[in-house]
Amino acid sequence: LNRDVPDPLLLRLAGIVGPDHLLTDPDMTSGYGSDWTGRFRGSPRFVVRPADTAEVAAVVAECGAAGIPVVPQGGNTSLVGGATPLHGEAVLSLGRLSEIGAVDPAGQEVLAGAGATLAALQDAARPHGLRFGVDLASRDSATVGGMAATNAGGIHVLRHGMMRAQVAGMEAVLADGSVISRLTGAGKDNTGYDLPNLLAGSEGTLGVITRLRLRLVPDPSDRAVALLGLRSVADALSLVGAARAALPGLEAAEAFFQDGLELVCAHAGVAPPWPEAHAVYVLVESAGTGDQLSPLAEFLAERPEVGLAAAVAAEARDRERLWAYRERHTEAVNAAGVPHKLDVAVPLAALEEFLARANETVSTVEPNARVVTFGHLAEGNLHVNILGLEPEDERADEAILRLVADLGGSISAEHGIGVAKRRFLHLTRSAADIAAMRALKAALDPRGILNPGVIFP
Amino acid sequence: LNRDVPDPLLLRLAGIVGPDHLLTDPDMTSGYGSDWTGRFRGSPRFVVRPADTAEVAAVVAECGAAGIPVVPQGGNTSLVGGATPLHGEAVLSLGRLSEIGAVDPAGQEVLAGAGATLAALQDAARPHGLRFGVDLASRDSATVGGMAATNAGGIHVLRHGMMRAQVAGMEAVLADGSVISRLTGAGKDNTGYDLPNLLAGSEGTLGVITRLRLRLVPDPSDRAVALLGLRSVADALSLVGAARAALPGLEAAEAFFQDGLELVCAHAGVAPPWPEAHAVYVLVESAGTGDQLSPLAEFLAERPEVGLAAAVAAEARDRERLWAYRERHTEAVNAAGVPHKLDVAVPLAALEEFLARANETVSTVEPNARVVTFGHLAEGNLHVNILGLEPEDERADEAILRLVADLGGSISAEHGIGVAKRRFLHLTRSAADIAAMRALKAALDPRGILNPGVIFP
Repeated sequence: LNRDVPDPLLLRLAGIVGPDHLLTDPDMTSGYGSDWTGRFRGSPRFVVRPADTAEVAAVVAECGAAGIPVVPQGGNTSLVGGATPLHGEAVLSLGRLSEIGAVDPAGQEVLAGAGATLAALQDAARPHGLRFGVDLASRDSATVGGMAATNAGGIHVLRHGMMRAQVAGMEAVLADGSVISRLTGAGKDNTGYDLPNLLAGSEGTLGVITRLRLRLVPDPSDRAVALLGLRSVADALSLVGAARAALPGLEAAEAFFQDGLELVCAHAGVAPPWPEAHAVYVLVESAGTGDQLSPLAEFLAERPEVGLAAAVAAEARDRERLWAYRERHTEAVNAAGVPHKLDVAVPLAALEEFLARANETVSTVEPNARVVTFGHLAEGNLHVNILGLEPEDERADEAILRLVADLGGSISAEHGIGVAKRRFLHLTRSAADIAAMRALKAALDPRGILNPGVIFP
Repeated sequence: LNRDVPDPLLLRLAGIVGPDHLLTDPDMTSGYGSDWTGRFRGSPRFVVRPADTAEVAAVVAECGAAGIPVVPQGGNTSLVGGATPLHGEAVLSLGRLSEIGAVDPAGQEVLAGAGATLAALQDAARPHGLRFGVDLASRDSATVGGMAATNAGGIHVLRHGMMRAQVAGMEAVLADGSVISRLTGAGKDNTGYDLPNLLAGSEGTLGVITRLRLRLVPDPSDRAVALLGLRSVADALSLVGAARAALPGLEAAEAFFQDGLELVCAHAGVAPPWPEAHAVYVLVESAGTGDQLSPLAEFLAERPEVGLAAAVAAEARDRERLWAYRERHTEAVNAAGVPHKLDVAVPLAALEEFLARANETVSTVEPNARVVTFGHLAEGNLHVNILGLEPEDERADEAILRLVADLGGSISAEHGIGVAKRRFLHLTRSAADIAAMRALKAALDPRGILNPGVIFP
């Protein structure tokens, strides 16, 4: 047993979860001490793995009484150090709360434990002709509890919204060990404050999510994809606006640029879609029941933005070939160096200006740096990858985040604040906003037990 | 000047908003003292009508310092006494904050003052081929600020979600007079706690909403409606589940029953859609660009639930004729007596049981009472109208709400708690939930200045 911790607490925790699920040996706990990026590392005081909500509640109450802070952890796929015990906190792993209930095909909902992985949820939905509306590359590890706690996004936000929009009900343990619950599946509920909506996106600081009632969406049988080379960002935005109006099945509108495309083609050893370069590339996908190709092709034929650089596909293999130009950006960027990754959003009206100024902003700080950008066009959400910087040198990151803030954007579109962006919180949140957030934190967690290292500077 | 109020406060308030916008004469203020239903009546201490956010902030700060509670009021269309000064509070009318900004057609958003009416918003959106995703019968009076503060619903929730889902940004004044703001239109924003989502639905108790960035949706050019007479609620739910999967343009799925239909036909002097009675009537509407009728008719032709009682319409006049059977329920019920109106939701799996037990539940309390039910089928949201009760006799109301709670439902689906349902809050909210809500209220409004009479018992 770890000598830093009073033994009576460990004995009580072992009594709650069983000795096999209280880990104190550093060989066993070290994997819980660093996140997906490897950038954030700490040593958990201990790791406790409760089996259900009652055990979570008892563990939180015991740790709170002992003054031991707790970091709730799902699949440990944070990109911002949001679930890492940097200061020797205990890790509360939700992995054993992985039960997925029976899918309700009429209500298009399912009850899932916080520790259920996204992949397991998709597997449960598929036999019913349904799927989950948020999908992520980390689906085999990411848990639905972590996704709700961080309000995860992805490529289908355009169609289905972010994680918050999928949450039809929530059960959670508060810092005092009490359990709040709204799980029954009443489709509309204006009965007092919406605690689930407050806990969603609060990064484990206001409560530990233990179970979720999640909305499912129809799994479309037919798909069509178009890749377009366009003359300008303005043309791309105009096209996507029109597509949203004309194509009810539109579920993705992704953008990338010439420098990223060249990196992908060199890395993957594939030819570019067209011999000539274009200012911006847009990939749109329409999904539904019945032919998606004809409506998409007819829509594109009538749009003034679309020139000769257009490829349309309905067969799976052809769709995948077009998607690869977008999807292989991450691996191509990683192969070219260790990027600084920023996840920002700007208002659509400011998108063209942001793109025009981002390179200049970075090169003012570091002339040899290189910026590769791609992202989700409909929400102005860009993943900005900066190559050629020292790992700990955040000057270029800060310059980009300040540009985003100046343009009325969001410094954290999908990934949350975690520990990575705490010191930039004030860029887009006023003193009054931060004071209100701190008041809420103090109201629900007066002793600062839950994930104390994240969000606040 | 009212002698109950210290003159210096009134002088300061008049200095903030101008003397014309501080009303103290009971002849001028009495209209602010009772809501849409007439059931809830009070006398405002005074009414203050600020012109912008800065004036709202100054007014709230002054009232707070003087210990005078404030009831924020939009269009005064509450059905639950949610904006009525029952105990002599001051009324803070947001009606002058009615400015609607330029519509952003690419981003499909618009900035609107809290006092803008829903009708004005629809008028602003229409020239751009857009509309607002929530629509209500009270559109000429209801304001977007009030709709956000109460998380309003309506018939299009199935397609676009409730009011909360339309809020892309919010500015609000907190109880201490500070202003929180998230209005810039960054499409995705995971930067700390989501204060707009907490204030939405909080019924004016946590802050005074002053401006909103609102999402707009394409205004469909084509529509088709089907009215169906079905054999059972199970058949109706099965049909609606399949329609949601098959028809991407599905935007309404309404239900009513034989007793309500007979009331409508007698009141309106129209023939029923079919000579024979059916267990449940379902009205579905599909909207989009291009022919909606053929996909709807093809879908219905393949569904086993649909027998001979099906009418499909695409022309406006025919659609209106079918919709009238559903829409005229409210006036037909009101013509038959003074109904007690309940707005509840139950999980879809419990809907059949609720309907089967609701009549029996009411008649146990009052044998001569009569229950007429209709509502939004996809969310299990039923408007339960009870005729034949004394106005102040809430025994049948309580019996229905207890049945709803026993079935895992919501005692307030769309209308909020207000003062009308405070004493029933505990039916579906645990002591831990209510304690957490009270902690949030105390954190943001420690002096209890904002709308102190609502939500909490």
